[in-house]
Amino acid sequence: MMRLPNLGKAKELAVSEWLNVDEPLQLENLQGKVIVLYAFQMLCPGCVSHGLPQIKKIQHAFANDDVQVLGIHTVFEHHQAMNPDALRAFAYEYRLDFPIAIDQPSKVGPIPETMMKYQLSGTPSLVVIDKDGYVRFQHLGIVDDLVIGHALGTLLTEQSNHVGSTIDDQKKIADEVSTEQGAIICNDDHCEVKR
Amino acid sequence: MMRLPNLGKAKELAVSEWLNVDEPLQLENLQGKVIVLYAFQMLCPGCVSHGLPQIKKIQHAFANDDVQVLGIHTVFEHHQAMNPDALRAFAYEYRLDFPIAIDQPSKVGPIPETMMKYQLSGTPSLVVIDKDGYVRFQHLGIVDDLVIGHALGTLLTEQSNHVGSTIDDQKKIADEVSTEQGAIICNDDHCEVKR
Amino acid sequence: MMRLPNLGKAKELAVSEWLNVDEPLQLENLQGKVIVLYAFQMLCPGCVSHGLPQIKKIQHAFANDDVQVLGIHTVFEHHQAMNPDALRAFAYEYRLDFPIAIDQPSKVGPIPETMMKYQLSGTPSLVVIDKDGYVRFQHLGIVDDLVIGHALGTLLTEQSNHVGSTIDDQKKIADEVSTEQGAIICNDDHCEVKR
Amino acid sequence: MMRLPNLGKAKELAVSEWLNVDEPLQLENLQGKVIVLYAFQMLCPGCVSHGLPQIKKIQHAFANDDVQVLGIHTVFEHHQAMNPDALRAFAYEYRLDFPIAIDQPSKVGPIPETMMKYQLSGTPSLVVIDKDGYVRFQHLGIVDDLVIGHALGTLLTEQSNHVGSTIDDQKKIADEVSTEQGAIICNDDHCEVKR
Repeated sequence: MMRLPNLGKAKELAVSEWLNVDEPLQLENLQGKVIVLYAFQMLCPGCVSHGLPQIKKIQHAFANDDVQVLGIHTVFEHHQAMNPDALRAFAYEYRLDFPIAIDQPSKVGPIPETMMKYQLSGTPSLVVIDKDGYVRFQHLGIVDDLVIGHALGTLLTEQSNHVGSTIDDQKKIADEVSTEQGAIICNDDHCEVKR
Repeated sequence: MMRLPNLGKAKELAVSEWLNVDEPLQLENLQGKVIVLYAFQMLCPGCVSHGLPQIKKIQHAFANDDVQVLGIHTVFEHHQAMNPDALRAFAYEYRLDFPIAIDQPSKVGPIPETMMKYQLSGTPSLVVIDKDGYVRFQHLGIVDDLVIGHALGTLLTEQSNHVGSTIDDQKKIADEVSTEQGAIICNDDHCEVKR
Repeated sequence: MMRLPNLGKAKELAVSEWLNVDEPLQLENLQGKVIVLYAFQMLCPGCVSHGLPQIKKIQHAFANDDVQVLGIHTVFEHHQAMNPDALRAFAYEYRLDFPIAIDQPSKVGPIPETMMKYQLSGTPSLVVIDKDGYVRFQHLGIVDDLVIGHALGTLLTEQSNHVGSTIDDQKKIADEVSTEQGAIICNDDHCEVKR
Repeated sequence: MMRLPNLGKAKELAVSEWLNVDEPLQLENLQGKVIVLYAFQMLCPGCVSHGLPQIKKIQHAFANDDVQVLGIHTVFEHHQAMNPDALRAFAYEYRLDFPIAIDQPSKVGPIPETMMKYQLSGTPSLVVIDKDGYVRFQHLGIVDDLVIGHALGTLLTEQSNHVGSTIDDQKKIADEVSTEQGAIICNDDHCEVKR
């Protein structure tokens, strides 16, 4: 079973618009909760078949005071087909009622800003953030329920107050995404930017 | 197991545009084959989770000389989000390579013309047409593989040349859809126009 | 999709005992029905996970006047653990209520008599017999519902009265099982006698 | 998501025979590990279809130094069909290679001794024991992977050395099983002793 190393402070999301919230959310204000951040695209087959049902299951299995589920729509292909109105129709049809952020489009390339910040290489990507605001798990593709359950049990049980340098850890996942888009490939598991 | 009554001559499709074909298709020119006509919407959850994988399975299990699989995109809600460009992106991501017709939008209401002609009440709807061009099975929602396999085995084995009145049969399925749109409801199985 | 060649007249079953019947059955007396003969072992994982649920589905999808489902318990390993009393407990727990024959144990080796007659190489094996008593499909391992549905639709629609030599067809499946038992290997799909 | 109350010190297992071990195991000697104790019967449909695949997944997902998976064959019906030799054949066919205890048959009734001690009301039952030897979760029937993952993440992260009275907690689950056997009912989820 995976360890959950400290991958660095979770960066604030860059969001052009929120769905299913009264007011914009800030990660900073959610400290004390474990956050499950789910990056998806509405036309990504693996997101629709596996990821979104799993996120709904997490949403309903845990109390919202313990675990905050957040979706982020990180569109890096077919931008026109996956515009905000289309996402709203999708969220309505698929009964998604958790907060969903629309990732801020980039001015310089197809990959949106939060996806760049978090160096996500495709969708679905799961990012789990601990009660102190540190990224502890980040994965492209399908993750088994047993693995996510273990991570959430671990992070909910840990004492707070992490300290110390996390710079080395951050470097480990760095430089995986650049603004220059390569080939994009989707399979049953995920959609990915290949470079 | 269902019987396969003659539900009347299959009406020609009203199509604004075709995907995955070199030239527009005509049902009339496909006589001699059994036709599986699959009406779907790209944002209909039951279509995506169950129907489209099943249609692909039929496409690959039967020789194209025996069974012709046809999709028809019968958009009756969220018309803007499910426009032709969005459908093309969807077909690309989901690896749909069988012929897909875009149902001709209606000038008088949200329900497109072929959907009206066939009196389909929602998506996914499966229509099976025999070698002589008669509708023999029509169903809204998920259909078991055993049922479709049985229907195709039956229709491929039958001798051609049906005769006799089919008017009464046609009436049995008539008047189920009108141009006045009522509430639209989607569940895990299908999306439906309720009146 | 498979063709359904004539694989020869179905041989009468050799049965030491029947479950779920008032009187012993004879294939000969079932002519006019399509017969689905399902050879299984109670400790064969593929039989339990895939085959038996499928057989139950066939049993309930088709009228008993059209399709006769028959199980045959062809024990070729762990004979003591799969004795008739154990099978009765198994059939009770798994709610099997279709007729089940216990294949007559052999006097000369581990493979029982009907399994030898039909030259079955393992379990689960599906044998489909047409209305005139000819074997038309025989397969070791899991079969897709679409394939079985197609076979049943075809055989229910065919006219009766097959004629002509079937000797060549029979030879095609001959000599696959001998009384000398080799290694037995089970995987998720089936258990097989390897020689 | 469930809390994991202290349900009392885990009682030592009463075992007539072990499979897949060199020497008999004692719970007492496993302290420091989280123990997943899985009570099953080889002819219980819910155990075979859901529980055993899940136990294998847990066995392979966690290091054996962290989580010890133990099976216990708690036969309370069809005792003859589920005898030790039959269990060995079953374990061989289903590739079960974790330690399996055979629950000590009772001298006074159909329910074996460990099943009585733990007051299990049927199979499959999952019992999770923490690093200090206390029962923290006990459940009849199918448990979601997300729930088990959460429990294991929690118990692996907790500090050791629980203290304090657990008597009240124990009473909550007491008196659910007696030596007088009532009706036994199996469904897709589990087999249960009804009283």
